[in-house]
Amino acid sequence: MTHQTNSSTSATGGSVAPLRPVSAPFGATVPPPVEGGGVTSARGFRAAGVHAGFRKEVGRLDLALVVADQPCACAAAFTKNVFCSAPVTVSRGHLDGVGYGTARAVVVNSGNANAATGAIGLEAAEETARLAGEAVGCPADEVLVASTGVIGVHLPLAPFGTGLPQAVGQLSAEGGAQAARAIMTTDTRPKEAAVTFSGDGVGYEGCTFTVGGMAKGSGMIMPNMATMIAVITTDAPIVPNALHDALVRAVDVSFNKVTVDSDTSTNDSCFLFASGEAAPQGAPSFDPSGLAFARFEQALHAVCQDLARAMAADGEGATRLVTVNMSGAATDQDADAAARAVANSPLVKTAVFGHDANWGRIAAAIGKSGAAFRQEDAAIDIMGMPVCRGGLTVAFDEDEALRRFEEAEIVIDVDLGAGNSETTVWTCDFTHDYITINGDYRS
Amino acid sequence: MTHQTNSSTSATGGSVAPLRPVSAPFGATVPPPVEGGGVTSARGFRAAGVHAGFRKEVGRLDLALVVADQPCACAAAFTKNVFCSAPVTVSRGHLDGVGYGTARAVVVNSGNANAATGAIGLEAAEETARLAGEAVGCPADEVLVASTGVIGVHLPLAPFGTGLPQAVGQLSAEGGAQAARAIMTTDTRPKEAAVTFSGDGVGYEGCTFTVGGMAKGSGMIMPNMATMIAVITTDAPIVPNALHDALVRAVDVSFNKVTVDSDTSTNDSCFLFASGEAAPQGAPSFDPSGLAFARFEQALHAVCQDLARAMAADGEGATRLVTVNMSGAATDQDADAAARAVANSPLVKTAVFGHDANWGRIAAAIGKSGAAFRQEDAAIDIMGMPVCRGGLTVAFDEDEALRRFEEAEIVIDVDLGAGNSETTVWTCDFTHDYITINGDYRS
Repeated sequence: MTHQTNSSTSATGGSVAPLRPVSAPFGATVPPPVEGGGVTSARGFRAAGVHAGFRKEVGRLDLALVVADQPCACAAAFTKNVFCSAPVTVSRGHLDGVGYGTARAVVVNSGNANAATGAIGLEAAEETARLAGEAVGCPADEVLVASTGVIGVHLPLAPFGTGLPQAVGQLSAEGGAQAARAIMTTDTRPKEAAVTFSGDGVGYEGCTFTVGGMAKGSGMIMPNMATMIAVITTDAPIVPNALHDALVRAVDVSFNKVTVDSDTSTNDSCFLFASGEAAPQGAPSFDPSGLAFARFEQALHAVCQDLARAMAADGEGATRLVTVNMSGAATDQDADAAARAVANSPLVKTAVFGHDANWGRIAAAIGKSGAAFRQEDAAIDIMGMPVCRGGLTVAFDEDEALRRFEEAEIVIDVDLGAGNSETTVWTCDFTHDYITINGDYRS
Repeated sequence: MTHQTNSSTSATGGSVAPLRPVSAPFGATVPPPVEGGGVTSARGFRAAGVHAGFRKEVGRLDLALVVADQPCACAAAFTKNVFCSAPVTVSRGHLDGVGYGTARAVVVNSGNANAATGAIGLEAAEETARLAGEAVGCPADEVLVASTGVIGVHLPLAPFGTGLPQAVGQLSAEGGAQAARAIMTTDTRPKEAAVTFSGDGVGYEGCTFTVGGMAKGSGMIMPNMATMIAVITTDAPIVPNALHDALVRAVDVSFNKVTVDSDTSTNDSCFLFASGEAAPQGAPSFDPSGLAFARFEQALHAVCQDLARAMAADGEGATRLVTVNMSGAATDQDADAAARAVANSPLVKTAVFGHDANWGRIAAAIGKSGAAFRQEDAAIDIMGMPVCRGGLTVAFDEDEALRRFEEAEIVIDVDLGAGNSETTVWTCDFTHDYITINGDYRS
């Protein structure tokens, strides 16, 4: 059973213009990146990553600590999964249940998720915060916690006892890279990003602000109930509730738009700290309706999207990052549903793995997504090559398609022809290695 | 990263009773099956399967014809995919757009889906019905059509010209098996089922009624936009609109509960004919609120579920049928959403392939499904072995689990502890062969 296109049988044919050039995701802005930047690029933060002993592998980093020089504004977004882990519950509580407040530090261990561990797990997460506060020199409720790793196994506290003082001893403004390694699970590479933006012309003359962060995407986002965790910092002056609003908006167009085999794990957590250290002392916080704040949000989106794309590209067994640009939807909900249907389709993901410009699978996915459109209005490009117009096949050059599938990022553009809403979702291809990684018996 | 359970670290432990024995799906009834039965088991129907030439492979059956001896009641259910094929549009029209009416025949070709073919495709589907009507000896609008195969390629009419007269010549009451082979695409085996029920005590003394049918599930349900097609017949006397009501209910708990990598393709069609030939001449049609009708519905559900399970078990690359029984849901919608989340999870499906009783993946799936429940109320069994109670790990015998994974059908029972709604969904495991089949370049 194969999908065939050739000029003698295709329903339409000839030269057709692509929907758009293969380019950046919708709404993306590209502030200047900081080469090698990460969670300690912004002023006022230090970090460390150490081997505390959650993992048996000698020397493998498994404890990350990010500390602000002073208590500062903090916001967080957590998993919406009904099964949520103990550290999520505890961190929520330390941010007064509203997702923002003041904090000094975040401690992340890998190797154990502290999930499905009941009351004992909650106590362990609280004790982690207490131990970290003791090591850093702050109250326990100024510490946020996150865990990623095996579930249903009680989190041992001994590694914190030895690891936290060691991590505090190693805290530095160059420690971001080590911290990014310490939070990895099945990730094949650390994920860091940072950008800067200028305060010139928006009330903060001569100031350069930085937003930087690290993330771990656990390969398949939630393999074995592992987790997406991100820690982002900025030296812009921002009050907690405004920081939270910005974080929610940024997460919506970045981490929440990554879909590999599911949307949210038990432990997903994203933390954002704002030290204000790049602004002159006594300068006011960014006005949430002002131009400086808008620049901050652009920078935050860029960092979050960069980290989100890195997570998708590092999906378990992945050989390709897949970017799905959905446009022409009647509503934002339709755009999201249609884009996710494409990105979650195993048939689309195996087609990418097979270098197969099989638009029928994309059409079937949008058709079942619930998004409102008429098939005769739909258009699809793969890597900038028109393959479907008006719901009908467009002849294309198979050799050229194969060449374009060599790229590291495969872009699928769909126009539903039903409105003006659009969105971008990221995923990866589906490969033999995915089956091997996830089908191996957990011996 | 592995999920671990052992008595020294599990959050709970000890001897725990399973939720229920590993058994039939919810609401299943088991009327006596007809050995070797199929679409021609019911009286008043003949069928044939021939090689018409839609496929190049010499002798491979690719045209099925099912004919009622007389015009009789007919009902149909079609794909809800926005991208729907020409034969779906034409068959809908022949049933007056309401999904029921009177018909004589259904003709199904494999090898070409007649989808994404525009106006020319609609003409081809109408011409198919005209040619079949001519061959059978009935008006074109008493013929229903269905197609499955490649998309975006115009359906050739020549094979109908030679194949239909040949099929009419071979029509017989034993032709069901050939017809079932002729509709196969990536199916590895034909799918047929039939059951009988007695009219004794429900107003049709001495009568034995039969419901039988055939289906093709195209392996992965919608690979390359191929299709689920089913043709079911009965010799019970039933009026068209009541037949339609029964079909909709049956499809809802059978074909609509199979989810392999999507819910609905462009060509999905299910036809149900009722000849009334097993009732005495002049006997009234079954009263839709009566006991005879209830027995008919039981039989129809049994046939549809048998065919649906066969489709799931024959999923592309599948080594196991996976049955997900979801109970304790607050609403029917919640039960369905949670069951589908489990059945659609690539992590759950690869775990089954890997013989891994990894309940964390099941918990993560129900947790993100949107179904209302509290994690501390959730319980999970795998193959009748309790693995999660109260949201916490239950220690189990790993060797026994491995033994139970040797079965052809893997049963997952989940109790959300949130209400009384329940449902069953069928899928299959996710294997290397799936990636190979769907990732191969369509050369």
